[in-house]
Amino acid sequence: MALTRTFLDAGGSAPMTPRALEAVRAGFADGWADSRRLHAESRRAQALVEGSREAIAEVLGCPAHEVAFSPSPLIALERVVGAVHTARRGRERVVASAIERDATLHAAHYYSSGRVETVQVDAEGHLDLEAFAQALDYPDVTLAAVQHVNHELGTAQRLDAIHEVAASHQVPLVVDATASIGHMESPVAWDALVASPADWGGPSGVGVVAVRSRTRWLPAWPERSGFEAGGAAVPLILAAAVALQERMENREKDEAHLRSLVDRIRGEAARMEGVRVVGDPVERAPHLVTLVCEGADGEAILSRLDKDGIAVGSGSACEHDGFEPSRVLGAIGSPSTGNIRLGLHPGIDEPTIGRFLALLPRAIADVRSDAGMPTSDQQPVWGRVES
Amino acid sequence: MALTRTFLDAGGSAPMTPRALEAVRAGFADGWADSRRLHAESRRAQALVEGSREAIAEVLGCPAHEVAFSPSPLIALERVVGAVHTARRGRERVVASAIERDATLHAAHYYSSGRVETVQVDAEGHLDLEAFAQALDYPDVTLAAVQHVNHELGTAQRLDAIHEVAASHQVPLVVDATASIGHMESPVAWDALVASPADWGGPSGVGVVAVRSRTRWLPAWPERSGFEAGGAAVPLILAAAVALQERMENREKDEAHLRSLVDRIRGEAARMEGVRVVGDPVERAPHLVTLVCEGADGEAILSRLDKDGIAVGSGSACEHDGFEPSRVLGAIGSPSTGNIRLGLHPGIDEPTIGRFLALLPRAIADVRSDAGMPTSDQQPVWGRVES
Repeated sequence: MALTRTFLDAGGSAPMTPRALEAVRAGFADGWADSRRLHAESRRAQALVEGSREAIAEVLGCPAHEVAFSPSPLIALERVVGAVHTARRGRERVVASAIERDATLHAAHYYSSGRVETVQVDAEGHLDLEAFAQALDYPDVTLAAVQHVNHELGTAQRLDAIHEVAASHQVPLVVDATASIGHMESPVAWDALVASPADWGGPSGVGVVAVRSRTRWLPAWPERSGFEAGGAAVPLILAAAVALQERMENREKDEAHLRSLVDRIRGEAARMEGVRVVGDPVERAPHLVTLVCEGADGEAILSRLDKDGIAVGSGSACEHDGFEPSRVLGAIGSPSTGNIRLGLHPGIDEPTIGRFLALLPRAIADVRSDAGMPTSDQQPVWGRVES
Repeated sequence: MALTRTFLDAGGSAPMTPRALEAVRAGFADGWADSRRLHAESRRAQALVEGSREAIAEVLGCPAHEVAFSPSPLIALERVVGAVHTARRGRERVVASAIERDATLHAAHYYSSGRVETVQVDAEGHLDLEAFAQALDYPDVTLAAVQHVNHELGTAQRLDAIHEVAASHQVPLVVDATASIGHMESPVAWDALVASPADWGGPSGVGVVAVRSRTRWLPAWPERSGFEAGGAAVPLILAAAVALQERMENREKDEAHLRSLVDRIRGEAARMEGVRVVGDPVERAPHLVTLVCEGADGEAILSRLDKDGIAVGSGSACEHDGFEPSRVLGAIGSPSTGNIRLGLHPGIDEPTIGRFLALLPRAIADVRSDAGMPTSDQQPVWGRVES
């Protein structure tokens, strides 16, 4: 990638650091053997997995034996929902927030044969706790699925209160932490949790599952194995752990840094004409923010910025194909077109954000103009009191 | 791994070559972006996937659009069985050879609710074609699953004849080619096929699915996507293609080389006392062979050779935990304990095999002796005509 490119779409897949890349290389050079066999090469691969499991468990704040690996975060979400649901057969209903990822909602529909109660969120994306409690009053609820942080809004749910309600109904809480682990303090209020290494600068091809010992689950898939889905890719697990450790070493500094950059983006964007900033301005992940640009197509803004060397996201971060109007924005009562989504990685600096904020108004104006929508500087006849 | 180690357990997970390792490194350095987004980083990742898909399709002898990637070969087997089965709902029965991998059989049982007809194999591991045709006479068969090469026996099925029978019953043939692609000529007689990059010296964490355009399938899983199961890991796909191309460049030479090494192992082992060589001596993959050592525990022989710096496999190559007695050996009427399983990669040379063959009789004798079983040189009183 040319050095002049600026990557502001790191939510879900951040560039890998040299240390994480070296871990992948070393892992594939030394840990390529099937970790389930008996000879020295296998034992070495197994040791890499166990060391990585310990390291990741420490960040999640749970014992290593509660941590498993699956081949992707989305498979991890599917399997956890399926496994907890299957262990509570007899009950059937799944309760989920309206802004869960597709993988979670698809799994919920699949395993419950469509008996999914979605609970609305408020204008900032916080779960309606009263409606959540009411949904859990059904006698046949198998599990509740709530994200820690939504990839688009950045809003962090109040998991302590949510878990308290779930626990009082004796319903296990499955927490999708695929946008938060590695960026902020790990949540403690969960019964099962899923995390995404690629989101914290680790490799794609691996997901993390954590299930408390107290939480019952049963395999809901053909294999007679756990969450691994065909065996763990040892080098990817190793690199996931190394990347997470690196993030943790600098977490407080990075978090403050990214939080201040996003605060600046939020502040300046809110002052741009027809631009709205969504999500909770305070209770949020440090690195995520979405802007909604009235009367402009988000995808077109993305393409325009891409030509300026800046990569941003658009559409719904939760959708598989990525270019559908965002149902998450719909859920908070916001227009869902015209959104651009930013995910900052720790390497992003102040001047880079300055450049982005300098280029953004022009990009929006051009897109509005191409779409035949008049803008203030092109069509002064339409009137503005001040430019 | 120390340079003096000899790795003879490369069936399923071979060491990666420098070129494949470099592809992984380059892939994670340049292809880390989510390939489903719109900006330059994503398009670059997408281009890596498409180039890799072309390269792999060429080896499989099918158009690129028939090739997909899943996060592991076992998930690929599960998904293909599930997808073809689901498209033919109404019918229910699955026909499978008795020596299919666990992943295939588990998926068959799962999707058909246990309606699986297994077809026996002969003493060399060849499918009983007459019994196969009889099984397909049931009116409600959704698919037939037959391996190209069995990981333990090395025997290559006569797929042309098998496919002809399946086609005459209008039943799609799902071929598990996870032990053959990259080692020998790719089979052409299949309707759906699964291949394993780690088996040909590519990375773990990726599986290959190929489904002919004429073969109907439907998703049998929660996501509304294809076989990808949560998005493809671009760098692993790239490295899989690079490793396969490297194997193909040297295929005829490597195949002749490994075939002659295995011929030597088969010949010398057959002359060792109480050692039996299984599988078809001619119609087989070039690099696989299993020896059954009477009165000796396979795992103990493995551990003994491991101390001499030689890694071999034992137990069933098809089982998840790997240390169960082999049902594949049971299926050909062979004792299933005392087996050691070899998978040679192209880097193995003649002197290495010489050293292995020199050490093997002592290893077997020691294990028999530890188990309290008399051996000829320890207990001459039990008699042998000649040593």
